[in-house]
Amino acid sequence: MQEKGMNRHLLSTKDLTPATIIEILDTARELGRITDGGMKKLPTLRGRTVVNLFFEDSTRTRLSFEAAAKRLSADVINFSAKGSSVSKGEGLKDTAQTLEAMGADLIVLRHGASGAAQRLADSGWVDAAIVNAGDGTHEHPTQALLDAYTIRSHFPECANDFSALNIGIVGDILHSRVARSNVFLLKALGAKVTLIAPPTLLPIGFESWPVNVSYHLDSVLGSLDAIMMLRIQSERMSELFFPSEREYARDFGLGNLRLKELKARAIIMHPGPMNRGMEISAASADSPRSVILDQVSNGILIRMAVLYLLLGGNPVPVEGVLV
Amino acid sequence: MQEKGMNRHLLSTKDLTPATIIEILDTARELGRITDGGMKKLPTLRGRTVVNLFFEDSTRTRLSFEAAAKRLSADVINFSAKGSSVSKGEGLKDTAQTLEAMGADLIVLRHGASGAAQRLADSGWVDAAIVNAGDGTHEHPTQALLDAYTIRSHFPECANDFSALNIGIVGDILHSRVARSNVFLLKALGAKVTLIAPPTLLPIGFESWPVNVSYHLDSVLGSLDAIMMLRIQSERMSELFFPSEREYARDFGLGNLRLKELKARAIIMHPGPMNRGMEISAASADSPRSVILDQVSNGILIRMAVLYLLLGGNPVPVEGVLV
Amino acid sequence: MQEKGMNRHLLSTKDLTPATIIEILDTARELGRITDGGMKKLPTLRGRTVVNLFFEDSTRTRLSFEAAAKRLSADVINFSAKGSSVSKGEGLKDTAQTLEAMGADLIVLRHGASGAAQRLADSGWVDAAIVNAGDGTHEHPTQALLDAYTIRSHFPECANDFSALNIGIVGDILHSRVARSNVFLLKALGAKVTLIAPPTLLPIGFESWPVNVSYHLDSVLGSLDAIMMLRIQSERMSELFFPSEREYARDFGLGNLRLKELKARAIIMHPGPMNRGMEISAASADSPRSVILDQVSNGILIRMAVLYLLLGGNPVPVEGVLV
Repeated sequence: MQEKGMNRHLLSTKDLTPATIIEILDTARELGRITDGGMKKLPTLRGRTVVNLFFEDSTRTRLSFEAAAKRLSADVINFSAKGSSVSKGEGLKDTAQTLEAMGADLIVLRHGASGAAQRLADSGWVDAAIVNAGDGTHEHPTQALLDAYTIRSHFPECANDFSALNIGIVGDILHSRVARSNVFLLKALGAKVTLIAPPTLLPIGFESWPVNVSYHLDSVLGSLDAIMMLRIQSERMSELFFPSEREYARDFGLGNLRLKELKARAIIMHPGPMNRGMEISAASADSPRSVILDQVSNGILIRMAVLYLLLGGNPVPVEGVLV
Repeated sequence: MQEKGMNRHLLSTKDLTPATIIEILDTARELGRITDGGMKKLPTLRGRTVVNLFFEDSTRTRLSFEAAAKRLSADVINFSAKGSSVSKGEGLKDTAQTLEAMGADLIVLRHGASGAAQRLADSGWVDAAIVNAGDGTHEHPTQALLDAYTIRSHFPECANDFSALNIGIVGDILHSRVARSNVFLLKALGAKVTLIAPPTLLPIGFESWPVNVSYHLDSVLGSLDAIMMLRIQSERMSELFFPSEREYARDFGLGNLRLKELKARAIIMHPGPMNRGMEISAASADSPRSVILDQVSNGILIRMAVLYLLLGGNPVPVEGVLV
Repeated sequence: MQEKGMNRHLLSTKDLTPATIIEILDTARELGRITDGGMKKLPTLRGRTVVNLFFEDSTRTRLSFEAAAKRLSADVINFSAKGSSVSKGEGLKDTAQTLEAMGADLIVLRHGASGAAQRLADSGWVDAAIVNAGDGTHEHPTQALLDAYTIRSHFPECANDFSALNIGIVGDILHSRVARSNVFLLKALGAKVTLIAPPTLLPIGFESWPVNVSYHLDSVLGSLDAIMMLRIQSERMSELFFPSEREYARDFGLGNLRLKELKARAIIMHPGPMNRGMEISAASADSPRSVILDQVSNGILIRMAVLYLLLGGNPVPVEGVLV
């Protein structure tokens, strides 16, 4: 944990080396083994305080970090800044410093501004470790880590090298921090990444990303080992990014016909919450290929691993004696 | 715990056999003895996760389940779905499955739709145990259990047979899941149940219920061993279920004059929160006959017992060594 | 702990004797030593339940009490009555009694009505200990205690006698429970207190308070050992208490020029949250003289001490074995 990527914080997947990624994934797997062995609650972080500082609502992400922290016996403080009087800039500073003064050892930050977590980490305002839990349309690194964990557990032969895998990411790439974090992380592990979206939902400058791009889901569907369906926000339609829900679902939804065209071992992923019938059909969401609920479970293991590595720093003993 | 009623879930009082009811009540009493003995926190459910999944607000019910779970050392996740983007049907499915993937062993469900808890239990969507904490105007079984517990502790000579008792339920029976759950449970224990309400606030088909019905509180008041005053919602008035607050209070409120007409040992009950001066006078609420605060305390014991029986399954040792 | 001030409750600083104040401050210091020694979580209040009953929002105060309670291993129930159907008077009674029936040993009350905590304590409605966490414009005693703790730790030579210190309180004295609680407490310790505000923001009858008053910050600035800047609510401007933000900041803000006029050892305090650029400049808030974040940390120690003394009652052993 000496290199840049997760030296003190977890801000982005862009800086993570393959070695760090593998360390996180291996730690999560080890924690999963201990948990499956019946030791549901580990005393590792007893007396440490994790703060969820959320400037945007995200019940699922908050609950996942909260569950991860509690399983490691940390205390959790939830601070929802939404609707409070905090403004940008100094608001973040004073809020973070106040929470640190209350004992925060680690701050999980969700913020609407891209770069907010980086800014907090660079500012010197606090000594606490920072974990980016989503900053604007920028990054959401623990989501990408749990996705990689999920892919790895379904393709164990790929272990630490994803170069045999072609991962498709479908939908609103433009506004998706999940897509950005996944692109960087999957490339670091050697995967081939294919973005599939209408031109209006691709970000400016995507040509320089290390990815393939397709505007036609059907033309690449049969080549994918994993297909990640992004949540489509219906407000994007009124903003003219796509003409209608019906047309979006027809062109980019994972419907029942497309479900049959997938490769034999291909898996279906979604970061949740799903719009069933929109970007994904009910049959696709519930098919045996779907690993969507595995993603949720794995999310807790990944967040346990991140908290553990940032706050603990010692290798996880297999015996489960983590005091 | 092998028969239908609380084999895996607690959905309704209608299916509970007297034996199961008595088992729950006895377990609650045992837990109360251990707690009173100074052991306020039991390690019984350490490492288990109880989720409060509330599609409607109910701070008191949520806090009661939360306190019960914490006293048994379970972890608690509160998920308030109100105002979130969950829709009916699939919304319940995905939300419940996500919470189970986060580790939920038991889901406490409050939902505005009658039958929601039954649907979740029957669906096969999750393996977690389901406890119905109120579904529409249908049932609220833990409320009826805590009411029975409270009655039993004031009439110990009745023990497992309430046939000597006449229990009155007064007010908005039509919209009351509390009334429905109580009718089934009290009848199972052999009690005589009398519903007292204006005709507009009685449900269609009540004639087939195993109860007596009266439209005049004063004519039955002196025959009751326990009188349950239901909360009246003032919005019912504007919906024309009754003409005015004044008239309702005059005809169906437990005022100071009626307080004097009660039997010598009769007790006064209310599921809370009360509208003092409306369905119950302050003097009635605060009289020595009132067991309203006992109901609150007993609610925690009953919910501890239900969590214990659904998640633990072993008899409660009297010594309090419940690991 | 036998005299009136904190015999069973903490309602006001007005009744606290110097001996009680010193006992609380000493207990907080002892708890701080134990915590700094690495024992972040003490088992002292295991099995006890602390309820935060907040009729007004105050995330910071609630989190501080919550963190204090958790560090002593108490269970915490948060009850936000804002927006619920509780009305005044009977609402407070039924809510408090319900929470006590759920097991509350101590109620931390924040209420918009001056005197609410006193009323709850005097009523006999509950046996639980009451801590006033802010009642209208009346008092906020734990804030004054943490302020005294902070001052004491920066002027250790003053120990239990603040008579060598001149403490300035600047701003909206009229609406400030923080100012009122500080005046009484600081005077009890012998300090000289100077209120600095425009005449419109001083309370009626302030002439009888044991303080000096100045309408001109610059004329007293150089004589202060500690300067407390109160938060100014911008809604006061539209209520005509002061003409404009610019004029307020010019006359009563702690700007960069005034920062240079402070005494060599003077400290800068603020109860938070700050309006940077309004009552305090960023340079003042972040200067080495600022003890604003110390106030936050000390707030948790003070609240731990208060919970400990009200619920525990035994002296704190230095060894940290507090079972």
